[in-house]
Amino acid sequence: MDLPVLTPGQFDLVSNGFSLAIAAMGAGFIYFVLVRGQVAPAYRMALTVSALVVAIAFYHYIRIFESWAAAYVLEGGMYVASGKPFNDAYRYVDWLLTVPLLLTEAVLVLRLKKGSGGMIARLSIAAVLMIVTGYPGEVATDTATRLIWGTISTIPFLYILYVLWVELGRSLPAQPEKVRVLVRNLRLLLLATWGVYPIAYLAPVFGFDGAGAAVALQTGYTIADVLAKPFFGAMIVWIAFEKTRADGWQPADARGSAAGAAAD
Amino acid sequence: MDLPVLTPGQFDLVSNGFSLAIAAMGAGFIYFVLVRGQVAPAYRMALTVSALVVAIAFYHYIRIFESWAAAYVLEGGMYVASGKPFNDAYRYVDWLLTVPLLLTEAVLVLRLKKGSGGMIARLSIAAVLMIVTGYPGEVATDTATRLIWGTISTIPFLYILYVLWVELGRSLPAQPEKVRVLVRNLRLLLLATWGVYPIAYLAPVFGFDGAGAAVALQTGYTIADVLAKPFFGAMIVWIAFEKTRADGWQPADARGSAAGAAAD
Repeated sequence: MDLPVLTPGQFDLVSNGFSLAIAAMGAGFIYFVLVRGQVAPAYRMALTVSALVVAIAFYHYIRIFESWAAAYVLEGGMYVASGKPFNDAYRYVDWLLTVPLLLTEAVLVLRLKKGSGGMIARLSIAAVLMIVTGYPGEVATDTATRLIWGTISTIPFLYILYVLWVELGRSLPAQPEKVRVLVRNLRLLLLATWGVYPIAYLAPVFGFDGAGAAVALQTGYTIADVLAKPFFGAMIVWIAFEKTRADGWQPADARGSAAGAAAD
Repeated sequence: MDLPVLTPGQFDLVSNGFSLAIAAMGAGFIYFVLVRGQVAPAYRMALTVSALVVAIAFYHYIRIFESWAAAYVLEGGMYVASGKPFNDAYRYVDWLLTVPLLLTEAVLVLRLKKGSGGMIARLSIAAVLMIVTGYPGEVATDTATRLIWGTISTIPFLYILYVLWVELGRSLPAQPEKVRVLVRNLRLLLLATWGVYPIAYLAPVFGFDGAGAAVALQTGYTIADVLAKPFFGAMIVWIAFEKTRADGWQPADARGSAAGAAAD
């Protein structure tokens, strides 16, 4: 990406977004690890995977934050390119690891079906294809290349969304009442956050370029990541709590005590 | 190693590979520590050793990443040697510690036989010999030296692969059905990932040198390390889960509860 001249306000908006993401990913990690023991063992793997996702993203946002800071220098009241490239690829390396894990997390908490291993494998392969084909368009400097790779990348993207939407929907009747509402919300969250990625990706295509596009792209990806990782993970925890309650499971040290009854 | 001039794309590919390895090793560490309590006590040492392996590699990849960044400087749009040497020895120091541990991990999870201590010791000695004799060839600037030490190093390398292949094969009949499939995959993964090391090592010998060779060597080692450490460890966890299930063991807080039944 060519680095446009930014006002201090624009530069700080992006930096502060990255910093917010670092804090949110780190807090998410602590939360998922701490509450793991309070959900029934059957749902713990979903929380473990959530913890991995935000840990990986925590690491990458530190790298992104530092790469961004090094790529600019303040000159005459404006932020101009320092000559050091801004490494956008960290996002793609992050997604390569975290998107398959996020899909695994959603499938695990719902225990969608016996032998969900096959579905996780298919979704993971689609995720890798989506990210690997999106990357050449992201680093391209011309609109045509961005559009071509973006279009190719959209095919596995739509496949993943379709499979998850349908499978999450299919799991609804088997879920306890309260969980049903949460799974519906999880579906909507998935659609809303995943929808941000193609919009951010296409921002430069729609003549929306220069400083505005760079800020929109970075901020858009950051917001989407915070919603898709720690926020999504928090919903997974909530579903795990409701399912734990519905199963009548309690932590060993809560059994036989009124104060121990509630898992949340 | 002589540091060839690299395009930004080549330099970034290597850097991003190192960064991916840092993230994968760190995530692997968290995963192995978190799931330790969910497998039967008999298999926990295998997971503990997996955690040690990726923790050591996590540390070394940070060093490698920083050494790589310091060894190059961006000049006129290309990355050229900064004058600071790139420290390839970190890989060898890493392997000196992690390869014996990896071998221990494989032997432990299968509980290959009573008194497997002798086999672990023999494999570990072979691993040390393999790494110590490979190193002089790795840092040599001439092809002859690389070939001579590479050949010597191949003897313990083949010995280790042979012993593991035969012993893993020998353990197959005694394993539960599902575990058998996993152990077969583990054997193939071992062969595939270990096979990358001699190929990467020999890349400069086969006239494949300069920028292309440097990128292939570093990226090849990195991919092999990610597959041989966190990915291999994840397969070990999977085997441990299946064996735990086959043994009928459950975590204490899952006992007598339907929701606790499955450890995955």
